[in-house]
Amino acid sequence: MELCFLGTGAGRPAKNRNVTSIILQFAQSPHGLWLFDCGEGSQHQLMHTPYKINRISHIFITHLHGDHIFGLPGLLSSRAFQGGTQPVVLFGPKGLKQWLDTTLSISQTHLGHELEIREIEEGVIFEDERYRVEARILEHRIACFGYRVVEKAQPGRLKVELLKEMGLTAGPLYGRLKRGEDVVIGDGAVIYAKYVTEPPVPGRIITILGDTKPCAGAVELARNADLVVHEATFEAALKEKAKEFGHSTTKHAALTAKEAGAKQLFLTHFSSRYNDEDTEKLVEEAREIFPNTEAARDLHAVKIKAVKTQI
Amino acid sequence: MELCFLGTGAGRPAKNRNVTSIILQFAQSPHGLWLFDCGEGSQHQLMHTPYKINRISHIFITHLHGDHIFGLPGLLSSRAFQGGTQPVVLFGPKGLKQWLDTTLSISQTHLGHELEIREIEEGVIFEDERYRVEARILEHRIACFGYRVVEKAQPGRLKVELLKEMGLTAGPLYGRLKRGEDVVIGDGAVIYAKYVTEPPVPGRIITILGDTKPCAGAVELARNADLVVHEATFEAALKEKAKEFGHSTTKHAALTAKEAGAKQLFLTHFSSRYNDEDTEKLVEEAREIFPNTEAARDLHAVKIKAVKTQI
Repeated sequence: MELCFLGTGAGRPAKNRNVTSIILQFAQSPHGLWLFDCGEGSQHQLMHTPYKINRISHIFITHLHGDHIFGLPGLLSSRAFQGGTQPVVLFGPKGLKQWLDTTLSISQTHLGHELEIREIEEGVIFEDERYRVEARILEHRIACFGYRVVEKAQPGRLKVELLKEMGLTAGPLYGRLKRGEDVVIGDGAVIYAKYVTEPPVPGRIITILGDTKPCAGAVELARNADLVVHEATFEAALKEKAKEFGHSTTKHAALTAKEAGAKQLFLTHFSSRYNDEDTEKLVEEAREIFPNTEAARDLHAVKIKAVKTQI
Repeated sequence: MELCFLGTGAGRPAKNRNVTSIILQFAQSPHGLWLFDCGEGSQHQLMHTPYKINRISHIFITHLHGDHIFGLPGLLSSRAFQGGTQPVVLFGPKGLKQWLDTTLSISQTHLGHELEIREIEEGVIFEDERYRVEARILEHRIACFGYRVVEKAQPGRLKVELLKEMGLTAGPLYGRLKRGEDVVIGDGAVIYAKYVTEPPVPGRIITILGDTKPCAGAVELARNADLVVHEATFEAALKEKAKEFGHSTTKHAALTAKEAGAKQLFLTHFSSRYNDEDTEKLVEEAREIFPNTEAARDLHAVKIKAVKTQI
């Protein structure tokens, strides 16, 4: 799994930071690329990465402010233009469908594939055999969601050497044991799955939050997460401004990560008043509270390692 | 006067070409910056020019395809963000107002200044003491306009030395003569304006066309223009494809410029199949018909010289 920041700025693009968008890449098919927010110019940023626009399958919008959505019509259009024929599922707040339908209709943009727009409420908004995504409302000036992507625990590796010693060769039996089933073999003996498999591999948790003031929803979404992406529009000294505009400071983000027991924090959505040098100072403010903090940079990819099994 | 191409590509952005947008800069106040079309990322391109986003006063949209308008909401939002408090007048086809109203409302973008959206018909769509803009319908897959910006002839310079020899000193009299009035002086003598002024300075004509097949409207708009910007989406060999998609080839553009008696032609809106090297070949095709042809390049500024007076 890999996460890549396409844009890490707030409000408007700057030369060194585009407006918000994040790619989440999965190692295995059929999971392609998931996109979180899509500010103007996200498709331009994508051109400078190895990710293929036509592999984007799911898009999660946190809220409808322009710096999080104005790149969406162009990205969908270019995706179709470049051979993206598979359906796209789009999650986001109420209003997203009306806007996108109007935009695609007036511009006569014909995607040539299904575009399913799901205007969501809080709760589990996506689930398949491998992942679950939960959404919660945050506290911003406009309805805004945060997303928690939970990778389900995977069955532990089969102890193949042990099975061979027991005279059992590869076949459907191996599959059943790997899935956790206890199996009765020819002579009536029971093979207990737990004795012939390693312990399950716990899944990773990635939390990507939209714009928000500090709030309970953010902490819940970030609970025990391996990686939390939290906005830090302002430095700690500007906490009153942050409050006024429904944003967080560096320290707010750090406190949320700490309270949630998260493992790593990435700060993003920096006000355009801050240059790259300032960003270092912003990270330092957060590290006083939550040491494992990094500043997101445009086009910066982060590998999210598989969780090691405790034996 | 200066024209700058912010984007010169068709359909979708490429690394070397953004989608369509053109800046027209006037030398004198109160005319600020005029923008023609606003594809996604036009505000990003502007950051790499000396033009100030908050000086944009008038925006002319040729048609509602995404590669010509998807940058508009973000540009307006960033203009307001950066202190653009003066009104903006926006010209374009029917549908522009519904789309922009929906977009600004759903994204809760509050510009804090007047935005006048004029959905135009053919004819004179703008006129002040210095400029006139005419619009005509072109032939595309969707309603599409071309624009002809006509600078009005300016009064010739006063022959100050001659007036002084005649014993006439600077004052309101000079202004009246410069405006072309014949003036009776104290002793009853008539000073004829035409004898004490240089001939009027003819204005420049700049024609900026939207996407189109070859058509009479394009020729009329380009009549005697000092500079014509014409799309050349395809090479000459792809004329059937051009026809199918309502576009022009290099040779179509050159023939229009020639038939119109224009002075200079800039080709733009190149298909993303063409790289920079290909573009040179495209220009050569056009030059066989209209020698004074150039290929537009992103962030390329063109000075449009004042027309020399014939004496």
